[in-house]
Amino acid sequence: MFETHLTVVGRIVTDLRRRIVNNQELISFRVASNSRRRNGEGTWEPGNSLFITVNCWGKLVTGVGAALYKGAPVIVVGDIFTSEYEDKDGLRRSSLEMRATAVGPDLSRAIVRIEQPQPKPAEPPAQGPDVEEPAEAHEDEEPADLALSA
Amino acid sequence: MFETHLTVVGRIVTDLRRRIVNNQELISFRVASNSRRRNGEGTWEPGNSLFITVNCWGKLVTGVGAALYKGAPVIVVGDIFTSEYEDKDGLRRSSLEMRATAVGPDLSRAIVRIEQPQPKPAEPPAQGPDVEEPAEAHEDEEPADLALSA
Amino acid sequence: MFETHLTVVGRIVTDLRRRIVNNQELISFRVASNSRRRNGEGTWEPGNSLFITVNCWGKLVTGVGAALYKGAPVIVVGDIFTSEYEDKDGLRRSSLEMRATAVGPDLSRAIVRIEQPQPKPAEPPAQGPDVEEPAEAHEDEEPADLALSA
Amino acid sequence: MFETHLTVVGRIVTDLRRRIVNNQELISFRVASNSRRRNGEGTWEPGNSLFITVNCWGKLVTGVGAALYKGAPVIVVGDIFTSEYEDKDGLRRSSLEMRATAVGPDLSRAIVRIEQPQPKPAEPPAQGPDVEEPAEAHEDEEPADLALSA
Repeated sequence: MFETHLTVVGRIVTDLRRRIVNNQELISFRVASNSRRRNGEGTWEPGNSLFITVNCWGKLVTGVGAALYKGAPVIVVGDIFTSEYEDKDGLRRSSLEMRATAVGPDLSRAIVRIEQPQPKPAEPPAQGPDVEEPAEAHEDEEPADLALSA
Repeated sequence: MFETHLTVVGRIVTDLRRRIVNNQELISFRVASNSRRRNGEGTWEPGNSLFITVNCWGKLVTGVGAALYKGAPVIVVGDIFTSEYEDKDGLRRSSLEMRATAVGPDLSRAIVRIEQPQPKPAEPPAQGPDVEEPAEAHEDEEPADLALSA
Repeated sequence: MFETHLTVVGRIVTDLRRRIVNNQELISFRVASNSRRRNGEGTWEPGNSLFITVNCWGKLVTGVGAALYKGAPVIVVGDIFTSEYEDKDGLRRSSLEMRATAVGPDLSRAIVRIEQPQPKPAEPPAQGPDVEEPAEAHEDEEPADLALSA
Repeated sequence: MFETHLTVVGRIVTDLRRRIVNNQELISFRVASNSRRRNGEGTWEPGNSLFITVNCWGKLVTGVGAALYKGAPVIVVGDIFTSEYEDKDGLRRSSLEMRATAVGPDLSRAIVRIEQPQPKPAEPPAQGPDVEEPAEAHEDEEPADLALSA
């Protein structure tokens, strides 16, 4: 069938681990996300937590290695799967893993500076949207109900 | 029923627009994401495009305003809705909008430096996961099938 | 880059429209989802609404055509894009569209009977999980914190 | 922070388990989803698998109990978390769990009949969208690029 897609907003809770697997560079780390919910009285209370191992390959390796560290607030996006393995005592264990497609620091919890777009030659950031937006006017009109969404 | 959640990986295609709505600061911008698909011959071909207006409130305003610009590669996460409005000619129009909950530059397409976690006092990043992970060993064991996911 | 994936839980608000496009059968319909949010006093209030046109191709046509109708509560899963077109007055308009990968009635709002799995020969439902689950015991152990997630 | 939302399209691989927890009815089952990917030659090959325990509370109990069984093709939507527990040998284990918000049979893999909308009095299905769609014409116009999305 299909890949299962997931986005997690959380925090890196391990050091980054960098190694070579099948002749490709891999950076992996664990992310934790804890939730809170508003109860019947309108106050917030802590909810469940999610832990996931995030694997970064290919284009992600340089940017992730340069920017992230244990404790960093992150957004991770990718396809998830159950990894089955034997622990050091020979016991069957499973863990939730992600093959990341996009990773970034969360700007609601960090001040960040983009030092360099990547790759440079092919994608000049100042004028370079991936696609041309059609010539329909969007920006000069004030959506009437914008205030409602505040 | 429920909020509809969406993650978009794309590029900012307008200047950031900063203003005050209902006594709250708002930064909004448009994001475009274009897809490609592998056809029957195994080669990639361009697919459809998605355009969305992203609204950043509250904690996101400072981080987004400090880091992002037209052309930046981004991940945006939030709840989406259809905004109905009249354009300047009095015509009913609709557009897809997001109330963002997390936004970040995409490290597969940018080199980024985290200058300062935010807020400082409450969340020291060096030692501060949001939650304690249970004392189950994850890191010292090599998942057997990791190579398969390369 | 990538397809943008979305799940909408809502209700069909148009009749189903069935036609042939490029020699393939297509069923399309509109789905609306409205949200509510719990405010500071703990009471629910109406939120924003989302409208989307859902396109069902291939394997989905038979099952969707047999089961669904205007008013049915549904889950729709697929890849989304912005469709640009000219209306009958020659005005440029855009709408949010989904190419569905999975569609089903929502069992929290409907009583449903599965009459026949599809396709029959290749996928006998009674004994047929898509994959073998490893021989790790899951079902005989009571998760300790299950009550917490109630 | 936030709940982590997930949609899984897969198949039920255990019997449904029905019981009372904290004076509330609960139905739980395991879902497996396996992926395939198109390789460089354009052919499909099997990918990773995901296993998740799905917990259905409240409004979902009646509809799920009436329709689903081991082997059924399903869509499950909800919030996920890591459940930590001790197995019968006293070992710490973890599993991925979902608190479902919407569940349905997948119409790309099953023929289904909706016997009864639920609840009856409040939500007549024939005329009952959750929300009124604005009076903008959507259906009479043929999106110009619809053929492209086939």
